[in-house]
Amino acid sequence: MSLLVVGSMAFDEIETPFGKSGRIIGGAGLYIALSAAYHTRPVNLVSVIGEDFPEQTLETLRQRGIDIAGVERKTGRKTFYWKGRYHIDLNTRDSLVTELNVLGDFNPRLPDHFRNPDYVMLGNLSPQVQLSVIDQLPQRPRLVALDTMNFWIESTPEDLRKVIGKVDIIIINDEEARMLGQTPSLVKAAQRILHMGPEYVIIKKGEHGALLFSENEVFVAPGLPIEEVFDPTGAGDSFAGGLMGHVARTNDTSFDNLKRAVIVGSAMASFCIEKFGPQRLLELSPEAILRRQEVFKQLSHFDILYH
Amino acid sequence: MSLLVVGSMAFDEIETPFGKSGRIIGGAGLYIALSAAYHTRPVNLVSVIGEDFPEQTLETLRQRGIDIAGVERKTGRKTFYWKGRYHIDLNTRDSLVTELNVLGDFNPRLPDHFRNPDYVMLGNLSPQVQLSVIDQLPQRPRLVALDTMNFWIESTPEDLRKVIGKVDIIIINDEEARMLGQTPSLVKAAQRILHMGPEYVIIKKGEHGALLFSENEVFVAPGLPIEEVFDPTGAGDSFAGGLMGHVARTNDTSFDNLKRAVIVGSAMASFCIEKFGPQRLLELSPEAILRRQEVFKQLSHFDILYH
Repeated sequence: MSLLVVGSMAFDEIETPFGKSGRIIGGAGLYIALSAAYHTRPVNLVSVIGEDFPEQTLETLRQRGIDIAGVERKTGRKTFYWKGRYHIDLNTRDSLVTELNVLGDFNPRLPDHFRNPDYVMLGNLSPQVQLSVIDQLPQRPRLVALDTMNFWIESTPEDLRKVIGKVDIIIINDEEARMLGQTPSLVKAAQRILHMGPEYVIIKKGEHGALLFSENEVFVAPGLPIEEVFDPTGAGDSFAGGLMGHVARTNDTSFDNLKRAVIVGSAMASFCIEKFGPQRLLELSPEAILRRQEVFKQLSHFDILYH
Repeated sequence: MSLLVVGSMAFDEIETPFGKSGRIIGGAGLYIALSAAYHTRPVNLVSVIGEDFPEQTLETLRQRGIDIAGVERKTGRKTFYWKGRYHIDLNTRDSLVTELNVLGDFNPRLPDHFRNPDYVMLGNLSPQVQLSVIDQLPQRPRLVALDTMNFWIESTPEDLRKVIGKVDIIIINDEEARMLGQTPSLVKAAQRILHMGPEYVIIKKGEHGALLFSENEVFVAPGLPIEEVFDPTGAGDSFAGGLMGHVARTNDTSFDNLKRAVIVGSAMASFCIEKFGPQRLLELSPEAILRRQEVFKQLSHFDILYH
């Protein structure tokens, strides 16, 4: 089944306790599309880049079955640029430089053949931009998923509520869930967010794994116990891409299949953090992804003694 | 199989955002013994109380098959007293009053019929007291487990290292593991603590569940997603009691059985936090404990799609 991905493409410069990435490609749309393309076809990408974005990266995306007809290149302008430094525990980071450039007036226009997607993944963008994408779809996709961040929860809460009311899945981290649900309890926060409209709420907890909530069910996905994260950049987007890639491939929106999708997403994120930027996402195999899912299963499964 | 439990008995006064407990019974030894007694017999308790400790509580322990021959009552003196207030998120607390009383010079002497336990659970006490218990055992039990806390990691690191070198399992929370392992990475911390001697390291992460490490294996136990913790007091001790009660009952120290034991402990802790103090631990049934384990299984198990 087809997956429409809307999200940024960027130049990133990342500093971690382990080193500096230099100027590399990044952006939510890129991570989501690369991750999803391991799981479903076609992946239709909508984004915006400047004159400086490398043609070679676009060719890489094409070779992976990602349709970039929705990636608008603006001549005479620069690609979104972000420079950040992670703290010693790699859980927090400072943004050192943020130059929106072409992302500042991103006004996505869907090519005609993108307008009837089966599934949609809206990467972190302003709620207005996310809404404008939904408004371009003549009929309701089977499932629309949304990512957002603290900035939008604080600065444009009304627009955000509007778009949350129109999507089926929201994928956010624990801090964002607490902020959006206005309670320190993640369970209560998830219930409140479900009441805003979505059928599923997925809360990413970093090293502590992820939670999947529907109105009546909960799933607790384990975090992979790893010694050290090398670079967390893109982990959340890789998670979302794997998750929605799996849902699109299987065309099954049941809770049980969403559980599997959360594990697929967790596997993709666990690869992403092993190297700088999207590098690791470019060298995976279907077998490696399956084996990683088996690791998650082995880690978390147990039996009960009844006598 | 027999389980020797060494730990405090106390009067607690607990304040949470939901109310005040008034003066109730508590203490690590009490929680561990009550929790373990649902799983194995005999549970042999070593502790110390003052003249003011209620005879009725001792009778309750006896009725539950807990042998209190090792509970020393000191005439003319007062029982350990602790008053604490939990913060709004119930993850942190302030100690308002700590009166050690009889616990201040606790010098446990094991009754003769306690000296050959199959299993031992050393509740949080000074490492010197924990060592003095181990020294009273003429032969090595099948497995000795230890709890400790920040205070001992900071104030008596050498004694603590000595006792850690003599036990098979250490059960601590995430903050303590990071402090003891001197690294923010829980996986690295666990490896360093394993190198201090124990065969298993169990790290409790509160709402995020627990991690079980051996040299070559890891198990990630889910946290139960609950709307609100009523009172976290005794949760860690209920966990330890359920865990070691299960190990003693099954007489099986394999990694697979330790996984089950972590789930039993998690189930017991999840009950404990539902009411003030040990109240909930007094009203459980074996069926309810099994059902709670099934909830943990349902929460965390998933399948993988191979095609």
